[in-house]
Amino acid sequence: MTSAASSELTTRLLAGLPESAVVVDPGVTAAYRNDMAGFCAAGQPAVLVFPTDVEQVQHVLRTATELRVPVVPQGARTGLSGGANAVDGCILLSLVKLDRILELDPVDRLAVVEPGVVNAVLSRAVEEHGLYYPPDPSSWESCTIGGNIGTGAGGLCCVKYGVTAEYVLGLDVVLADGRLLRTGRRTAKGVAGYDLTRLFVGSEGTLGVVVGAVLALRPKPAPQLALAAEFPSTEAACAAVNAVVTAGYTPSLMELMDAVSVRAVNRLAKMGLPESTKALLLVAFDGPERQREVGEVAELCRAAGATEAVPAEDAAESELLLAARRLALPALETLGTTMVDDVAVPRSRLAEMLAGVAAIGERFGVAIGVVSHAGDGNTHPIVAFDAKDPEQVARAEESFEAIMALGLELGGTVTGEHGIGVLKKEWLARELGPVGLELQKQMKALFDPLNILNPGKLF
Amino acid sequence: MTSAASSELTTRLLAGLPESAVVVDPGVTAAYRNDMAGFCAAGQPAVLVFPTDVEQVQHVLRTATELRVPVVPQGARTGLSGGANAVDGCILLSLVKLDRILELDPVDRLAVVEPGVVNAVLSRAVEEHGLYYPPDPSSWESCTIGGNIGTGAGGLCCVKYGVTAEYVLGLDVVLADGRLLRTGRRTAKGVAGYDLTRLFVGSEGTLGVVVGAVLALRPKPAPQLALAAEFPSTEAACAAVNAVVTAGYTPSLMELMDAVSVRAVNRLAKMGLPESTKALLLVAFDGPERQREVGEVAELCRAAGATEAVPAEDAAESELLLAARRLALPALETLGTTMVDDVAVPRSRLAEMLAGVAAIGERFGVAIGVVSHAGDGNTHPIVAFDAKDPEQVARAEESFEAIMALGLELGGTVTGEHGIGVLKKEWLARELGPVGLELQKQMKALFDPLNILNPGKLF
Repeated sequence: MTSAASSELTTRLLAGLPESAVVVDPGVTAAYRNDMAGFCAAGQPAVLVFPTDVEQVQHVLRTATELRVPVVPQGARTGLSGGANAVDGCILLSLVKLDRILELDPVDRLAVVEPGVVNAVLSRAVEEHGLYYPPDPSSWESCTIGGNIGTGAGGLCCVKYGVTAEYVLGLDVVLADGRLLRTGRRTAKGVAGYDLTRLFVGSEGTLGVVVGAVLALRPKPAPQLALAAEFPSTEAACAAVNAVVTAGYTPSLMELMDAVSVRAVNRLAKMGLPESTKALLLVAFDGPERQREVGEVAELCRAAGATEAVPAEDAAESELLLAARRLALPALETLGTTMVDDVAVPRSRLAEMLAGVAAIGERFGVAIGVVSHAGDGNTHPIVAFDAKDPEQVARAEESFEAIMALGLELGGTVTGEHGIGVLKKEWLARELGPVGLELQKQMKALFDPLNILNPGKLF
Repeated sequence: MTSAASSELTTRLLAGLPESAVVVDPGVTAAYRNDMAGFCAAGQPAVLVFPTDVEQVQHVLRTATELRVPVVPQGARTGLSGGANAVDGCILLSLVKLDRILELDPVDRLAVVEPGVVNAVLSRAVEEHGLYYPPDPSSWESCTIGGNIGTGAGGLCCVKYGVTAEYVLGLDVVLADGRLLRTGRRTAKGVAGYDLTRLFVGSEGTLGVVVGAVLALRPKPAPQLALAAEFPSTEAACAAVNAVVTAGYTPSLMELMDAVSVRAVNRLAKMGLPESTKALLLVAFDGPERQREVGEVAELCRAAGATEAVPAEDAAESELLLAARRLALPALETLGTTMVDDVAVPRSRLAEMLAGVAAIGERFGVAIGVVSHAGDGNTHPIVAFDAKDPEQVARAEESFEAIMALGLELGGTVTGEHGIGVLKKEWLARELGPVGLELQKQMKALFDPLNILNPGKLF
């Protein structure tokens, strides 16, 4: 972008935004170029804007359409696929200042929020009304609801409570040309016309800019009671997972750490796990019979080969167990620079997936620790490498790709909850196949004929 | 359609379908012109086909595209909006012979089915594996999964378990030109690309023809334990509904019958309810604490003004209570020809909705009984009238429309679970507004540029 064009863009933006909302200082804008994904290219933004209301967002989009300037919507930039990365000459459209909770309704069990509301802020606000907003990505203390909607975020709760998509009843969306679209409803049910709401969830800012959301809430469950089970192999742990599912249990959490991540966490947290522990399974329940359920699941774990299977005494002890799971990523980060994969496979193929990832780690000579939302078959293989060693970087990238290939082979998807962004574009094409890909591109063209909305993401 | 064109169509169809699968006898095809909706026009079909596999469906669509002939997909034709009604010169594409359950997987908790599988057949099949397929429209003994997907069907279970859309993980769809599209996944989670699966659910056969579905299953819950509470007014009953919700309960069923339907059921089933009963609320639970929960909810009902609130002794007695609810439609049919509305409002507006419907019944001088999935705010006002009296038919139609207008006024939708079909086309336009309507029409044009897929439905 020439400096004349850039100045024209700024001038036009300032016609509908206060001066404080328009940032051109390259020192500042540079800090907003990336999300948390490694290996992802990011361009040079022309300008960074912080609108505070819907009308200002409409002005930004109208301006972008008139001047044919790309727009990259951003939340807290905690994404892991480069979906919020800048493209050259773009407007970085930060939604963090549209951060009001507009409504909390305990009878209708819903919240109406702006996109910049932080997940944890909403979660705590609804809790005061005895309610619960389940989606809980690891970044929940900082990520925004708008970002969660953009990526279709998941979390630890999904095995019982599902993903973000299941909690979005309706949306206000600013379209590429600045028009405001309202989708969905405030009612529990509704089938009037095509489900555009769900089309926007997970669309990574490529179809429109979410400026408001009606979210479904649930009654707040009891504190979780957890069980930790140590296994001599991931196969045995996966057999336990399957046994729990086929016996008809619905845990509120079912997380599995493989040998590499157990060792890293053990070292960091001084948990004193024996070297013979090759997999750690955490299973929790939050229903009225959780005490009985963790006891029975401990039995199932022992039957599947667990060397230890210890139910927590109470909620506080359960929290300590879950803290170990939350340490997995920081623990693996002590091994080097990390990149996080997000392959989900049918639950029945989890053991094969984990065996395959271990083999990939050996083949490419890189450390790969895997934490899995085992109940969902959603694995996060975390490849650790020395970013200063180009040869190791290359091997890390190759293993990262090999993991996605394995996921597809096993009937899975390359992304369970992180999205495609720029990181997995060619993999999206492979996963969808030619007919699906063509339709998705046509859909993009329908909503964004000038290709100004987060261009270069997804496709 | 000229008879030459019709014969050309039949010849072309027979090139890819066995003779037994192609029916042109007008005596037979006439019987397939309608679904169960009243007041809906239906055209004269050119031919009725019963393909038995995906390749045959593709042949039908390729033929339709080449000859520019409209195609109306049909399941069991139990719909209530005319969505499966014939249009002049169309191919009626019955999917009832694609009726295999291809897979039931207890570890992945999913079923893979063809569209013609009857809901009850699937429900019973999964039950043998200790599993549960929740969506349970009233027509569940005869309606098909393909029809359920087409309309986004609901049922009595939705208050706890949600609607059809939440159980569809992936679809095989034959597109207008005969290409086969696979959407979605077999995994619990997945966010790769736009959610085309949800776009097809509830699209009423206007975007493509569903020929296969991957459905999520749940563990089979315990038999429901129900409670019946009699109220002196619908206001009091709605206050009880809100009290149950705000107290944090999650019943497996929460159904409300208004004065007109209570009186009709009382008469038909000789239930012996006193004349003073103006509303009957049924609340059921299927969790481990159901005994305690129905007891507590009985207390809440009495506090809200219930004259009687009697928990069932056991599952068998609960079934008897639910039988009364299932009698509501047959009971109201004794009052005349009926047409069934399907307005859903935010739960907090249910009392206003019911008061408004009663006023509409008085204003137009027609009997309107309302059964509601009260936990979802989804009302079914059933207008009963004498179909032989044109003046009464006109008043019935006016009241039917007035009910939808009221629903929108209260922030609701004109259809919670039955769909738009031909019955509510102008109401869809009102509900969506101009921007939403335009985008939905563009979406239709994208998938079906020749407008041969169930034309004249939705828009």
